[in-house]
Amino acid sequence: MASVVTRIDAQLAFLTEADKLKSVVRGTTLCDGSRRENSGEHSWHIALYAMVLAEHANRPINIDRVIKMLLIHDIVEIDAGDNPIHGGHDPAKMEAIEQAAADRIFGLLPPDQAQAFRALWDEFEAAQSNDAIFAKSIDRVQPVVSNLETDGGTWPEYNVTAEQLQTRVGVKVQKGAPAIWAALKARIDDWFVRNTAN
Amino acid sequence: MASVVTRIDAQLAFLTEADKLKSVVRGTTLCDGSRRENSGEHSWHIALYAMVLAEHANRPINIDRVIKMLLIHDIVEIDAGDNPIHGGHDPAKMEAIEQAAADRIFGLLPPDQAQAFRALWDEFEAAQSNDAIFAKSIDRVQPVVSNLETDGGTWPEYNVTAEQLQTRVGVKVQKGAPAIWAALKARIDDWFVRNTAN
Repeated sequence: MASVVTRIDAQLAFLTEADKLKSVVRGTTLCDGSRRENSGEHSWHIALYAMVLAEHANRPINIDRVIKMLLIHDIVEIDAGDNPIHGGHDPAKMEAIEQAAADRIFGLLPPDQAQAFRALWDEFEAAQSNDAIFAKSIDRVQPVVSNLETDGGTWPEYNVTAEQLQTRVGVKVQKGAPAIWAALKARIDDWFVRNTAN
Repeated sequence: MASVVTRIDAQLAFLTEADKLKSVVRGTTLCDGSRRENSGEHSWHIALYAMVLAEHANRPINIDRVIKMLLIHDIVEIDAGDNPIHGGHDPAKMEAIEQAAADRIFGLLPPDQAQAFRALWDEFEAAQSNDAIFAKSIDRVQPVVSNLETDGGTWPEYNVTAEQLQTRVGVKVQKGAPAIWAALKARIDDWFVRNTAN
């Protein structure tokens, strides 16, 4: 068995590598529009979102697993970068890059943890379990709030239409947390009515 | 009973306010030294630290509570700012400011959640329960790793001595997670030997 020090060294190597997620810049800005947010602070924010909004899941979830899932869900972006949902990219190519990133980064951990973290990340990616479906809903809804707070935020930049937002985002939020989408719908509709050319 | 929409509105108001934590700049830099980290991304990182290092707690803990505690532990800095451990400040004055901040910020949540989140934050601040002691250990150890990764990081700026680091940081890490401090001790001692005038 590896010594405790060897084990802690591997764990700290992973945690130091994870620090790089703070330098991955996302498509969405902060709620005051001052700058784009990074994937590290985003990961904190959506873990907090999940903690606060757990009661609105439309099926039984284990919120503790959801939070852990969200804490690691973007780690692969250290190698793969952020891919904005409205940005347009090749899904198959991205998946291969993200799988390789997961191999490398979770592989820094001691083997038992590498396996457990990878399984949790795979579950999130598969988006089939109740926990993953709710986690995906939360991951999708936070940028919407950010864009609403900044008068549409980056929607104009990505030429997002009301229909695209419904198809790419609304459907996924509704799948795990329909009440949250319903609560935001009036603000969303209002923004698109005011900002869509007739 | 308040409607679901009213409840979600209050929850989103809290989550949007929480976004400001991403603009609170801390004393410590990223592990690549490129810039100071903010309290939002720091909160993510130490939640991940706790998730990875939970096994090294020296007393029984509930890691799920620890993670939630760490997700909200710095929220009061939105009003109170960050106070570096080596920065020197009036503890009684800071506590009053932080209590008022907790009243205001957690008070944005629906009453039942405001009470639950505040209780969790109070428990962290009191540093008496097993969960809080481990959470405090983790909160203290992450900046040490960051400073070690950046050749002492902000230690020279704050004129930190080996004795101060042991008293202000080491003692607290050792209280909840002695194995982690032991694993770092050689690197810490080595840095101070190399950087302390004879």
